[in-house]
Amino acid sequence: MGKASARPEGKSSREIQPKFAEIITVGNELLMGLVVNGNAAYLGRALAEAGVPVRWSSVVADHIGEIQAVLERALERASVVVLTGGLGPTPDDVTKDAVAQFFDMQLELRADLLEEVEARFARFGRTMPEVSRGQAIFPRGAKAIPNPLGTASGIHITHGNCVVFAIPGVPHEMEGMMESYIAPWLLENMATTPIVSKTLQTAGIGESLILERLGGIEHIDEFVNLAFLPSPVGVTLHLTAKSQDLYEAEAQLAEAEGLIRERIGEFIYATGKQSLAEVIARILANRGKTIAVAESCTGGLVAHTFTNIPGSSNFFERGFVTYSNRSKTELLGVPEELIQQHGAVSEEVVRAMAGGARRKAKTDYGLATTGIAGPDGGTPEKPVGTAWVAVADARETVAEKIQVGYTREANKMRFAQAVLFLLYRKLMQETA
Amino acid sequence: MGKASARPEGKSSREIQPKFAEIITVGNELLMGLVVNGNAAYLGRALAEAGVPVRWSSVVADHIGEIQAVLERALERASVVVLTGGLGPTPDDVTKDAVAQFFDMQLELRADLLEEVEARFARFGRTMPEVSRGQAIFPRGAKAIPNPLGTASGIHITHGNCVVFAIPGVPHEMEGMMESYIAPWLLENMATTPIVSKTLQTAGIGESLILERLGGIEHIDEFVNLAFLPSPVGVTLHLTAKSQDLYEAEAQLAEAEGLIRERIGEFIYATGKQSLAEVIARILANRGKTIAVAESCTGGLVAHTFTNIPGSSNFFERGFVTYSNRSKTELLGVPEELIQQHGAVSEEVVRAMAGGARRKAKTDYGLATTGIAGPDGGTPEKPVGTAWVAVADARETVAEKIQVGYTREANKMRFAQAVLFLLYRKLMQETA
Repeated sequence: MGKASARPEGKSSREIQPKFAEIITVGNELLMGLVVNGNAAYLGRALAEAGVPVRWSSVVADHIGEIQAVLERALERASVVVLTGGLGPTPDDVTKDAVAQFFDMQLELRADLLEEVEARFARFGRTMPEVSRGQAIFPRGAKAIPNPLGTASGIHITHGNCVVFAIPGVPHEMEGMMESYIAPWLLENMATTPIVSKTLQTAGIGESLILERLGGIEHIDEFVNLAFLPSPVGVTLHLTAKSQDLYEAEAQLAEAEGLIRERIGEFIYATGKQSLAEVIARILANRGKTIAVAESCTGGLVAHTFTNIPGSSNFFERGFVTYSNRSKTELLGVPEELIQQHGAVSEEVVRAMAGGARRKAKTDYGLATTGIAGPDGGTPEKPVGTAWVAVADARETVAEKIQVGYTREANKMRFAQAVLFLLYRKLMQETA
Repeated sequence: MGKASARPEGKSSREIQPKFAEIITVGNELLMGLVVNGNAAYLGRALAEAGVPVRWSSVVADHIGEIQAVLERALERASVVVLTGGLGPTPDDVTKDAVAQFFDMQLELRADLLEEVEARFARFGRTMPEVSRGQAIFPRGAKAIPNPLGTASGIHITHGNCVVFAIPGVPHEMEGMMESYIAPWLLENMATTPIVSKTLQTAGIGESLILERLGGIEHIDEFVNLAFLPSPVGVTLHLTAKSQDLYEAEAQLAEAEGLIRERIGEFIYATGKQSLAEVIARILANRGKTIAVAESCTGGLVAHTFTNIPGSSNFFERGFVTYSNRSKTELLGVPEELIQQHGAVSEEVVRAMAGGARRKAKTDYGLATTGIAGPDGGTPEKPVGTAWVAVADARETVAEKIQVGYTREANKMRFAQAVLFLLYRKLMQETA
């Protein structure tokens, strides 16, 4: 965490740690675990990109006293405080009251905000319900952050050396305000040191094998802080330069990346936030190639992953979710005898599926998966977590066996990533 | 939040608030937003179910001083503290050191734990790497929580009236320890008042329309706290009884649920944690019926959603991801002229797709989606967010138009939920 050092909480020292942000996400539903806190993750990324990394983050109940207590502590240590949630029209939304009371600001009905709320309802051909009138009540002296996607304005308050933003918890409204207002404001008004970091995406290799291949990380640790982020689709490596000097930091990153690529380069498919499907999509689009997928154990996930990418209709021709054996035969032309002889989960069948998908769809590549996602359906020879994946083109079909053991959903993710990685390696070889 | 009242933070009063838990999730990657904090959500649900609801939750850096500062504050107010993350073998894992130092416990190599770690590697046919030896080092005086799914033991420490659990951040290891050790321990050793609550799942109706239909929530608010949790697939209503008395609480819940069902009953498809796909799966399995799906705009998501359910092969026969117009014609028999005349996104085409899917797959029901997920591809008559969904059986085909405007992924989710809800209503009518 750079030069900043920890300080016990609760002391009322006003010595402000420069350039760090604190996130306060408001909502009982977050404490109860009814929703996952995607907002905190988004704000973590967005604030780091705006040059003010998040050092503290907490979740607080829909309760005026609790919100104020957390806000008070945040103002003692952070330069930027972002509260999100609790600005809606329902009675459990108390963030606006908590903030106004805390800063001793009077709440008043603002005619300009009322007009906007009414206009928004008018656009959808509805008259404004009385409950939404409250959305135009705003703390006097605070700046309103426009919300083109909803009725709740954000609140912008400057307090000493600290700036406070309170924004809605609805993700796209929050993201809109962050991108169009808060991030530009921070970049312009806060003297910040950008964090120099780099992300390497890997597939097909586990965390412990990476550590082993790297031979420990002491020799990398000289240059960067290296974080391992494992997930069912692979391990993400996050490198943060140690130097505060921009040029030196870039050099540190390059040095560390070189050391890592020497050892595990063949497993790194991207830098930055790209997914494997996005990398593949770009290659296919550049080369004007098309794919079709035949899925058994992944049950549509491979198709879903590709079709999440805008413009995927340019390369994704069709998908077959051939869950039953009959559908494998009817749609892909997999011979019944092949399934009877080797079982649906076999190298022979996955090869026939990939080739069949390609032929039937008349695409350049055919992808296929067949396996046992669990929790039931395993046998001693083919336990839950066993799958075969294959990729066919005009010349050949390559196949690979996967053996994992997570939950059903994680197994599906792992199988899907395996067939993507097989295609990726094929595409890479074709370049070479 | 019941009887408990807020208390400003940082005062060192030792007055303990009974029966509340605090979650501390450890990891720079969480602050940076590189991963979403699913662990906090899981713990929120699991601790509430174990009778100790979470009242405070924070994320802390991989930094000994910061972890200790948050732990110190937690011990002042919570009865149960759960730390998760930072117990792995890599150098950024410092939670064990932070906790041992905080409680003044010596770290020692435990022969029994070392044996377990070695045995685990042996099971996978590998010798233990030297780095994993550290996993057997444990604070003297603390209890070790067994970890059948990994090498890091959990730490269980009693401190005055408070109990502290430190467990790994790998989700399935954390969940395993929670279910097999911590939850049973809490249920047995903590005198707790269970939270009496109920969740109602809705689809096909927005938050503001629910509020309007309910005519405000004041009359419901007498009995329960009502929380609205909107998501792209629908609004979840979470009811928490106000009374601490178990029988009275149950009566309050029933009263409130009755009031809500009177007004919006037709939009409620489940109570509890069930998804719409799970509800449909149960009905189909009970009636011995089968489905096939034909997806354009949802691109495999409907198939993926159904095949996430264990045992889905009993009712899910096959899926067609007919992204191209050619595939709609070839696989589903949609006449080319129909697509030319009405466009791929039209009532005519979605009806032909649903009927075609059913006929080709010889299933009882055929589901279909076609639309514009965005961000591109919209026209003035058919803007991004427009979709048609349909369900066919032997007697008839029903179709419905959807008009939404979120991100591409959220639009896909909304479209998928729409066709599921259409099937659900059909299945309900057939009962009646």
